[in-house]
Amino acid sequence: MAFRPLKNYLLAPGPTAVPAEVLLRIAAPTIHHRTPQFEQVVAGVREQLKEVFQTSGDVLVLASSGTGAMEAGIVNTLSPGDPVLCVNGGKFGERWMKMARTYGLDVEELPVEWGRAVDPAAIRAALDRKPSTRAVLVQASETSTTVMHPVREIAEITRGRDTLLMVDGITAVGVTDVPMDRWGIDVLVSGSQKAFMLPPGLAFIALSDRAWAAAEKAKLPRFYLDLRRERTNLHQNTTAYTPAINLIYGLAQALGSMLEEGLPSIFARCDRLMRATRAGALAMGLRLVAPDAPSPAVTGVFVPEGVDGGKLQKYLRNTLGVEVAGGQDQFKGRVLRIAHLGYTGDFDTLVMLSALEMALSRFGVDVEFGRGPAAAQKIIAEALPAAAKS
Amino acid sequence: MAFRPLKNYLLAPGPTAVPAEVLLRIAAPTIHHRTPQFEQVVAGVREQLKEVFQTSGDVLVLASSGTGAMEAGIVNTLSPGDPVLCVNGGKFGERWMKMARTYGLDVEELPVEWGRAVDPAAIRAALDRKPSTRAVLVQASETSTTVMHPVREIAEITRGRDTLLMVDGITAVGVTDVPMDRWGIDVLVSGSQKAFMLPPGLAFIALSDRAWAAAEKAKLPRFYLDLRRERTNLHQNTTAYTPAINLIYGLAQALGSMLEEGLPSIFARCDRLMRATRAGALAMGLRLVAPDAPSPAVTGVFVPEGVDGGKLQKYLRNTLGVEVAGGQDQFKGRVLRIAHLGYTGDFDTLVMLSALEMALSRFGVDVEFGRGPAAAQKIIAEALPAAAKS
Repeated sequence: MAFRPLKNYLLAPGPTAVPAEVLLRIAAPTIHHRTPQFEQVVAGVREQLKEVFQTSGDVLVLASSGTGAMEAGIVNTLSPGDPVLCVNGGKFGERWMKMARTYGLDVEELPVEWGRAVDPAAIRAALDRKPSTRAVLVQASETSTTVMHPVREIAEITRGRDTLLMVDGITAVGVTDVPMDRWGIDVLVSGSQKAFMLPPGLAFIALSDRAWAAAEKAKLPRFYLDLRRERTNLHQNTTAYTPAINLIYGLAQALGSMLEEGLPSIFARCDRLMRATRAGALAMGLRLVAPDAPSPAVTGVFVPEGVDGGKLQKYLRNTLGVEVAGGQDQFKGRVLRIAHLGYTGDFDTLVMLSALEMALSRFGVDVEFGRGPAAAQKIIAEALPAAAKS
Repeated sequence: MAFRPLKNYLLAPGPTAVPAEVLLRIAAPTIHHRTPQFEQVVAGVREQLKEVFQTSGDVLVLASSGTGAMEAGIVNTLSPGDPVLCVNGGKFGERWMKMARTYGLDVEELPVEWGRAVDPAAIRAALDRKPSTRAVLVQASETSTTVMHPVREIAEITRGRDTLLMVDGITAVGVTDVPMDRWGIDVLVSGSQKAFMLPPGLAFIALSDRAWAAAEKAKLPRFYLDLRRERTNLHQNTTAYTPAINLIYGLAQALGSMLEEGLPSIFARCDRLMRATRAGALAMGLRLVAPDAPSPAVTGVFVPEGVDGGKLQKYLRNTLGVEVAGGQDQFKGRVLRIAHLGYTGDFDTLVMLSALEMALSRFGVDVEFGRGPAAAQKIIAEALPAAAKS
C-alpha cells in the first residue's frame, strides 16, 4: 500500500530531481555534434560553467560519471611514484586513495573519523614532514558522511608549496561557495546529477594554471581522459570524442536556470534547507551524523535505536514516495542522508520531515507529529520577505 | 534560404536519429539508481544486450563515448610492453594504435589503404612472424573509410592462438551479423549513438572467457574503466559508479524496438539501404570510396571533381535539412559519408539521394534528376511483399 498518486520526492544526494524543462530539453532531437549548431551550445555552456566554477580557466565536460573526472584529475597531473596525501574521512576519500594506489602513486593516508572534518593543521604537519608531496586529494563535501572539509584553509596551506590541491567538489560546486581561482584550488571536479539539476552522465573538471603545467609533465597514461586533448577541442567549441549531446542540451538549460537564480541565492537556499533539516531532525529527537562541519548538500541523521535504517528507507520510498539515501559501510542501516542540493525547494524539505515523522511512527517510534516540520518552518520563514500589509 | 519547415534528416554514421519514443523515455523523471525500480531496468537491458551482442557473456554498460569502451578493452586485458597488432586502415584504426602506444604496448602497425579491407593473410603472416602477439585490434566497420573488415576470417586466425581479437564494433553491432560467441571474438565494443538509436553517452563492451581470464592478469592501470568491478556490479543489476540513468531508460526502450524488429530484419534493412545508396550514387555518376568491402553502416562517395565537399555538406545541412558526414584527413573535402544504421528507413535513403541530386545541380554538376532515387527504388521495391490483388 502506498500513497496514490505516489508523487516522488528525490531527496538523495545525487541523482537529484531534474526540472521538467530540463528533461524536455534533453528530449529534443539529437543533432550532429560537428556542426555550428551544436558548437553554439558548447560555446554557451563553456562560459556558463566558468561562472559556476568561479574560474577564468576552462571547465571541461566529460561523458562519464564524477568518478571519471576524479580519475582525470589524477592521471593528467601526476606521474608514477609521486607522493600524494589523501584525506580519508568517508567513502569518497577512500575512492581517492584507491584510485591513487591503482596508478602506483606513493599514497599517504590522512584518516579522519567519519562525521568529522579534517583538521588543516594535520595537513600542514604532513606536508611539513614530506614537502615533496605532489598533491593533496580531498572532498569539499564528503557525501557519505555529510561533512564539509575546510577547503579554503587547506588551499592556504597548499598554495605556497609545490603541492597541488585536488578537490572532489561533486556535491559542493553549485551548492556552496568554492571559488576555485580565489582560493587557489588546482583541480576541481563535479558531476551533472548534483547541483546541475541533470541526469547523471556528464562530469566537469577545471585545472589551475599550475595544474595545466603539471599536465605537460605528468607521465600517467591517459587517452579517453586526456584533458589536454579536451582543452584543444573545447577551444574550438567541441569535444575530443562524441559528447553526450542530449545531456549537454539539458546542461545549457540547467546552467541558464542556475545563473538566473544566481549563485548567492543558490548557496543561501542550500544552507537554509540544511539548517531547516537539522533543526527538524533535532526537534524529532534524532542525532546528527556531522554535528560540527555539516555539508549544505546533504544532512545525515542516525535512525533511532531499534529501527532498521534500510527498512525505514524502503518504507519512505515505497509507501510515501520520498527517496533519501541510506548509510554506507559502518553507517549501513544506521543512517539516513537527506539532500538539499540541486532542484530542491523549501517545501520538499517540509515534505521529507513530515514523511519521516510518519514513517518513524509506523516503526514504533514515539513521535509527536509536526515538531520536525515546525522547527524547519521557523527557519524557512525567517528568509521570507515581509508582506505588504495594505 | 532553406526549406521551410526544415525537417532534419540525420544521416551521419553517428549520432543517428533517435525515435521520438526513445527521446520521451529519456525525458522521464530521474529516479535513484540504487533502487529495485532501477535495478529492474538494468536487469532488462542486461539480457537484451546479450541478444544484440550474440553472446552468452555479460555486456557491460559504461557512461562514456565508444572511445572509452575501446580503452577499457585495452586496459583490462593487456600489460605494459605486450605486443599487439593494430589494423590501421582509417581514423579509427589509427585510434586503436594511438591508444595502444599511450599505454606503452609494443605496437605493430598493419597499414591498409583507405577504402580497402585488411587481407586476413597479412594478419596470419604477422602472427606467424610474432606468435607472442597478445592481441589483434581491428574495426569491424571502419567508419572513416566506410569499409567492412573481415572479422570472421580474422577470428578464425586468432581463435587457435594465444592472441585476443579486440573488435571495435561501434558501427557494426546491431548493423550486420557479428556473432561474438560463434565467431570467437574476445572483446567487442559498441556505442549508444549508432545502431542503438540513442543519443551518445553510453558505451557497451563484452569480453570472452579468455579475455576475462586475461583481465585477471592484466597489469595496465584502470579504475573508472575497470570491467571486473563493473561485472561484479552488473551481477547485482547495478553499475560500479553512477550510471547515465535517463539514457539507460532510453536504452531499454530502444533495445525493445530492436528485438521486436529482430536482428535478421535489421541486418537486411541496413544491407538494403547500403545497396540502394550505392546503386543511387553510381547512377548519378559518383565514385564509391569502398568499392569492394562496403560497410552496411555507411557509404562513402567521392564528390565530383571541382566540387568542394565541405560546402556541399553544409548546403545539404542548412538548405535541405539533410545531415551527412564529410571526409576526414586525406578524404577531407572530397568525400561524403551517408549512414544506413540505426533509426534509418528506406524513405530516408530516397530523401537523401534526391537531396544530393538537387544540391549537386546547384553546385554546377550536370545532373539528370531522379536517376539516383530510381536506382535505389528498384532495390527497395524488390524487398516489398506482393500485394493482394483482389
